[in-house]
Amino acid sequence: MSIQYQNCLIAQSGGPTVAINASLAGILSASRASGKIGRIYGALNGIQGVLSERFLELDALLTAAPDGFLTALKHSPAMYLGSCRYKLSDPDTPSSDYAAIFSVLERLQIGYFFYIGGNDSMDTIKKLSHYGALHHSPIRFMGVPKTIDNDLPATDHAPGYGSAARHIAASVLEMAYDTYIYNTPSVLIIEIMGRDAGWLAAASALARTKDSRAPHLIYLPERNFSNEAFLSDIKGLLSRQKHIVVAVSEGIRYADGSYVSADTAAKDQFGHATLNGAGKFLEHFIACEIGCKVRSVELNILQRCAAHLASSTDLDESFRLGEAALNGALEGRSGQIPVILRLSDNPYQIQLAYTSLDEIANQEKHVPSEWINEAGNDVTNDFIQYALPLIQGIPQPVPNWENGLPVFPSVCHLLQT
Amino acid sequence: MSIQYQNCLIAQSGGPTVAINASLAGILSASRASGKIGRIYGALNGIQGVLSERFLELDALLTAAPDGFLTALKHSPAMYLGSCRYKLSDPDTPSSDYAAIFSVLERLQIGYFFYIGGNDSMDTIKKLSHYGALHHSPIRFMGVPKTIDNDLPATDHAPGYGSAARHIAASVLEMAYDTYIYNTPSVLIIEIMGRDAGWLAAASALARTKDSRAPHLIYLPERNFSNEAFLSDIKGLLSRQKHIVVAVSEGIRYADGSYVSADTAAKDQFGHATLNGAGKFLEHFIACEIGCKVRSVELNILQRCAAHLASSTDLDESFRLGEAALNGALEGRSGQIPVILRLSDNPYQIQLAYTSLDEIANQEKHVPSEWINEAGNDVTNDFIQYALPLIQGIPQPVPNWENGLPVFPSVCHLLQT
Repeated sequence: MSIQYQNCLIAQSGGPTVAINASLAGILSASRASGKIGRIYGALNGIQGVLSERFLELDALLTAAPDGFLTALKHSPAMYLGSCRYKLSDPDTPSSDYAAIFSVLERLQIGYFFYIGGNDSMDTIKKLSHYGALHHSPIRFMGVPKTIDNDLPATDHAPGYGSAARHIAASVLEMAYDTYIYNTPSVLIIEIMGRDAGWLAAASALARTKDSRAPHLIYLPERNFSNEAFLSDIKGLLSRQKHIVVAVSEGIRYADGSYVSADTAAKDQFGHATLNGAGKFLEHFIACEIGCKVRSVELNILQRCAAHLASSTDLDESFRLGEAALNGALEGRSGQIPVILRLSDNPYQIQLAYTSLDEIANQEKHVPSEWINEAGNDVTNDFIQYALPLIQGIPQPVPNWENGLPVFPSVCHLLQT
Repeated sequence: MSIQYQNCLIAQSGGPTVAINASLAGILSASRASGKIGRIYGALNGIQGVLSERFLELDALLTAAPDGFLTALKHSPAMYLGSCRYKLSDPDTPSSDYAAIFSVLERLQIGYFFYIGGNDSMDTIKKLSHYGALHHSPIRFMGVPKTIDNDLPATDHAPGYGSAARHIAASVLEMAYDTYIYNTPSVLIIEIMGRDAGWLAAASALARTKDSRAPHLIYLPERNFSNEAFLSDIKGLLSRQKHIVVAVSEGIRYADGSYVSADTAAKDQFGHATLNGAGKFLEHFIACEIGCKVRSVELNILQRCAAHLASSTDLDESFRLGEAALNGALEGRSGQIPVILRLSDNPYQIQLAYTSLDEIANQEKHVPSEWINEAGNDVTNDFIQYALPLIQGIPQPVPNWENGLPVFPSVCHLLQT
């Protein structure tokens, strides 16, 4: 169907990453380069911003912005347009949201709608695309992938993962050095994000150098966890070395499907179940069973927002995926998403392609079984070959620093709403 | 007393920082430049390494090291020589440790002994110095200051603090951006190190930019904490803005002296008291009392080991303090420590001086009362003026990166022991 309008709408949704703004910058850059886009609207807080008609006029903002705005945007964490978590009904039995959304799109004369996000966000743009097709809308709907979890199918890896992996690897290395200084046996347990897929915890393996072999044990949710096997692993290592660094996914589970966590029995003084995760549980477990020095560290949200440790490979690819989404839409694509295909590990070569949103929405990609060792306490070299290229590169130009801090674009539009 | 021997012994002790190896590099650099030092021994794991006679031959290592070794050492986290926590008895009623230590020093023909560390470590070197004086030893004993806690008296600030402060400020800024993306009220509580002094939590104020005012509340151990005042602060802010970022010292206490923590009632499934700190307690408190979205993050050991975010001001000063310790000893000083005097905030100017170890050992410097606001929930501009120069500067030359990771010197000598 030929396009009716030239205006463009962009939104972001789901959890933040340090690379999602790079995709926004890529769409904006390609829009300007194409000369074929009219107004560019940014919906604030994802699809909820469309429903509540809260927009940034990005084309005007871009015209008024100082030089280097797109570069600063590319290097900034979180989401410039804000996020939401909002599930649309099935487009075959549409809620009133659909009519409301399409009415706004018509009023703004939108020809292209880009939605940057992970599994759930791709569900949103897929449903809008299906609804549009059912109602013969000429609007072109494109997804743009991102998720630090790296659990999107159909793409070799997801934007945001490489930067999170670099933060994790560098942090694990630095914490390992911190651990080695005392002459007494110690166990450091590092809890890493990943509820269902272990890609992020697996990335801790990239911390290994010729001198430091930490993490010495890695546990992923793809394998059942066993307290007994874990204890045996720790005791075995402690008989040979003083310091053990352990990386665990927050989502590790026992064979019965229950999470490894201190949740169940612990209550705080309000009688509120304490939200201790796998790391804290294992810390107590080692303290009780072995009694050696033990500490747990939760990397927490820094792994998804530490823009100062972004991988330039990740930022560059995210930017290119944004450009590809825009250019694909101009070519007539809709209901699709640009993805990354790997051509070779070493030298690292990729190419971009497009796939249907049906292939990517609501599905999860796990760490392949053959990339986990037989004992289930480490990853194999195949994983290293896969992940190592993704954390390469210091972003160029180096992000600006002022007063010791990285300089990011103002997000006052989010704070005022 | 004139010096008898030309050999030098160096050790490190206490908690790690990212700047303590810079002081070691400074001592080594000044030793070489002086031409007056013979063999240079590094005791492994502090004074315990002297007692157990575990040494690195640093002069030989330095001769064999590749170009750039001292620079890599200057930029590396934790402790190249390893650490210990070991308390010597009073030198007036000496344990057998003293005779053992001085016997080793005699055998190694040590003329100069440098001990790099914080409050407790300065107690060790002060005691050795006193014992040496009592026994007419010609050995010159010098302390070199370090502590991320910044609680050493007699020095304007302590090496390690500026880099930890930079990590904290950058992390708080990045986490604030992460927080702003959702359109629902939220509270983020960031727990920062500092059991008795609030210098590190105060440094979170440096995260404020013209766009982001996080952290919106800061609580230090220098003021009594009150659940009611905290709740009132949060509710007041939530009536005016959506997102609140709170920085708290791990050591905040109620008026009765008890720590703010979830320790007291919480037990895990082993009946082991869970080690939840102030952040986790306040998270539950807000969840119970307000019910809005709330999360707590513990910066944990990254704040003392994230070398990739070191402040060059800090590393340069730490290096200079190491040089000053060596040169001071060559000038005949003993029982002393080089310290930093501030000449002006803006432009930032310092000079180094020496003070007696008696002035610095076993004492704590707190955040001055006048640098905390009246409500006890923020720091004043005077604190900002003080702390801002300390986080300035990206280390030059920029540390090496390889495969996405910072490159640090091997510490295999620590791992093999």
